[in-house]
Amino acid sequence: MDGAQDGQTLADHGEFAVIGAITQAIREARAPGEDVLVGPGDDAAVLRVRTGHVVVSSDLLVEDRHFRRAWTSAYDVGRRAAAQNLADIAAMGGTATWLTVGLAAPGDTPVEWVRDLARGLAEEAALVGADVVGGDLTQSGEIMIAVTVMGACAQAPVLRDGARAGDVVALAGRQGWSAAGLAVLSRGFRSPRTVVEAHRRPEPPYAAGPEAARAGATAMIDVSDGLLADLGHVATASGVAIDIDSTVFEIPEPLHAVGAALGADPLAFILTGGEDHSLVACFENAADVPDGWLRIGRVVAGSGVTVDGEPRSEAGGWTHF
Amino acid sequence: MDGAQDGQTLADHGEFAVIGAITQAIREARAPGEDVLVGPGDDAAVLRVRTGHVVVSSDLLVEDRHFRRAWTSAYDVGRRAAAQNLADIAAMGGTATWLTVGLAAPGDTPVEWVRDLARGLAEEAALVGADVVGGDLTQSGEIMIAVTVMGACAQAPVLRDGARAGDVVALAGRQGWSAAGLAVLSRGFRSPRTVVEAHRRPEPPYAAGPEAARAGATAMIDVSDGLLADLGHVATASGVAIDIDSTVFEIPEPLHAVGAALGADPLAFILTGGEDHSLVACFENAADVPDGWLRIGRVVAGSGVTVDGEPRSEAGGWTHF
Repeated sequence: MDGAQDGQTLADHGEFAVIGAITQAIREARAPGEDVLVGPGDDAAVLRVRTGHVVVSSDLLVEDRHFRRAWTSAYDVGRRAAAQNLADIAAMGGTATWLTVGLAAPGDTPVEWVRDLARGLAEEAALVGADVVGGDLTQSGEIMIAVTVMGACAQAPVLRDGARAGDVVALAGRQGWSAAGLAVLSRGFRSPRTVVEAHRRPEPPYAAGPEAARAGATAMIDVSDGLLADLGHVATASGVAIDIDSTVFEIPEPLHAVGAALGADPLAFILTGGEDHSLVACFENAADVPDGWLRIGRVVAGSGVTVDGEPRSEAGGWTHF
Repeated sequence: MDGAQDGQTLADHGEFAVIGAITQAIREARAPGEDVLVGPGDDAAVLRVRTGHVVVSSDLLVEDRHFRRAWTSAYDVGRRAAAQNLADIAAMGGTATWLTVGLAAPGDTPVEWVRDLARGLAEEAALVGADVVGGDLTQSGEIMIAVTVMGACAQAPVLRDGARAGDVVALAGRQGWSAAGLAVLSRGFRSPRTVVEAHRRPEPPYAAGPEAARAGATAMIDVSDGLLADLGHVATASGVAIDIDSTVFEIPEPLHAVGAALGADPLAFILTGGEDHSLVACFENAADVPDGWLRIGRVVAGSGVTVDGEPRSEAGGWTHF
C-alpha cells in the first residue's frame, strides 16, 4: 500500500502514491499476462496482438448516476465498471484482454475507496484473463470512472445488423435481477439480498458470447439499457422486427418477491430492466442455439420490438439525457 | 447535424441524436481508414492490427481543471484532448492510429459545444492519420472528457527507463509557450496571442517521436507536467541524474514579453511549464540527435534533475492532488 494509512484521502496522499496503491492492487489481482510487453507507468502500454485485430469499447460511470456510494461498495463499483465493458467484448463474440481505467475523483475521496475500486476492477477483469494495463488519475468534483477495454474475436465479430426474418432470438444470463435490485434499493430496502447483490455486481455470461459466435449467431448485443430497448437497437440496425414470447420466461422467485412487495409486474423487470449485461443473440436455426441459452422470440419482417405480438409502452429503456 | 437546432442542449436533443451529431462531425473530419473494420455504433469497434502490437494510453480532462470554457473554445478543447493523447504515443516512438472518446456533460450543455469538441478531436487525430472509432456519452455535473488512444511503433518502443550516464538530452517542439499563455490568461489578459493560442491548442511534434526512435533514442517522454518534472520521471525510471544547460535556450520573443509584463523569469516557463507536449529524449551520442532537436543537457550518474549543476526549487511540476 506504499505507506497509505487508513482514513487518508487522495489529497493527503498525493497523486503518485495513489497511483502506486492502485498499481499494487491491480498486480495483486493478477500477474500480468505475457502479451503485456510494457505495463502501466510509461507514456503508454505496449501490448502484443496475436490475432491481427483488436476489438475496442469505452464506457463511463458517473457517481449518483451509474452508482451510489451509499448503495454500492467501491469494490463492487469496480466489479461493475469492468463487467459492463467486458460484456461489450463478449457481445461481439470476443474475449477481453486489456483494460485502461481513468479515474476522476474529489480530493477528499478516501485512498481506501480508490484501492478497493482498483481491486474490484482487476478481479473482474481476471475472470476472463484480462489485464489492467494503464490509466489516468485526476481531480474532479464528482467521481467518474472511464474504462476502455480491448479484446479479440476467434471468429468473425457478431454485429448488431445481421438479424434476418426467421431467426430465433435467444438469451444468456440473468435478466431483470439488477432492475429488481435497484427498485428495492430505491425504496430504501436492502432485501431480497440476491437481487440487491445482482444490482451491485452483475455477472455477465462472458463465455456465452464466443460460444454464440462459434454457433453462427447472426446478431448479438449485451443488455445494458433494457431487453426490449437493446433488442430495438438490433432490430433497427438489422432492418427487421423482433417479437418476444413472454410465456417462455420463468419468473425467478426473488423477482416474484420484489414484484409482490412493490406492487410491480415482475415480468417488467425482465423485459425492461438493464444493467444485468445478459447477452441476447439471433440464430438462423433453432438447432444452432447453444445449450444454456433460452429461446425467447423470433425475428420477423417489419420494424420495432413487440411482446406476444403487441407493442409495450414502457419499452423505451434507459437514455442518458 | 441530424436535426439539431442552434441553441439546443443535450437534454433538448436526446442521447442518440447527440451521438449522431458527434459521429457526423467525426466522419466529416476524416473518412475512416481501411483498418477500421467496424467503426462506432456497435458494442465495440473492430480494428485491424498489422504490426503485431498496439500501444495504448488514456487521459482525462476535467472542466475548470484542465480547461475553462471561458478561455478555450470547444473546438480547441477537442484539439487539446486529442493532442495530449497523441503525444503519449509519439513519446513511445509510435504513431497513433485510433481513439475512443468518453464524454460526460451536464444536460444544459449546448449541442453545438459537443459537436465542436468532436470536430476538434477528429481534426487533431487526422493530423497523424488516426480515426475516432468509438466512445460513450453520459450525463454528469461537470464536463469530463476521457480519451484512449491506440497506436503502433515501427521500431522497439522508447521507454522512460533507458537513459544512461553519458547520454545527450534533447528537446523537440515548443516548450514554455503553453505556461506563458496560461499565465497571461490567469491575469485576465488575452495577449500576446501567440502564447494564448499555444495554451489553447498545443502543437506536439508528432513526427519527432518516431524519428527519435529510428535514431536510437534510449529514453523519451512528452512534457505534460513540466520539463524538469518530466525529466525527473525519466531520471527516476532510469536510475540516473540529468543536468540541463540553461544557456542553450533562446528565449522566444513572446515569452520575453510575457515575462516582462508579469515580472516573471521567462526561462521558468521553459523549465517548469507543462502542456506543450514537446518531446524530450536521450541519445547515446550527440551525433544521433536528429535535425530539429535542441541539445539541452546530459545524463550523469546520481539522481534527480539539476539546471547548470544546481537544483531548482520550483521544479516540482504539476500534480493532480
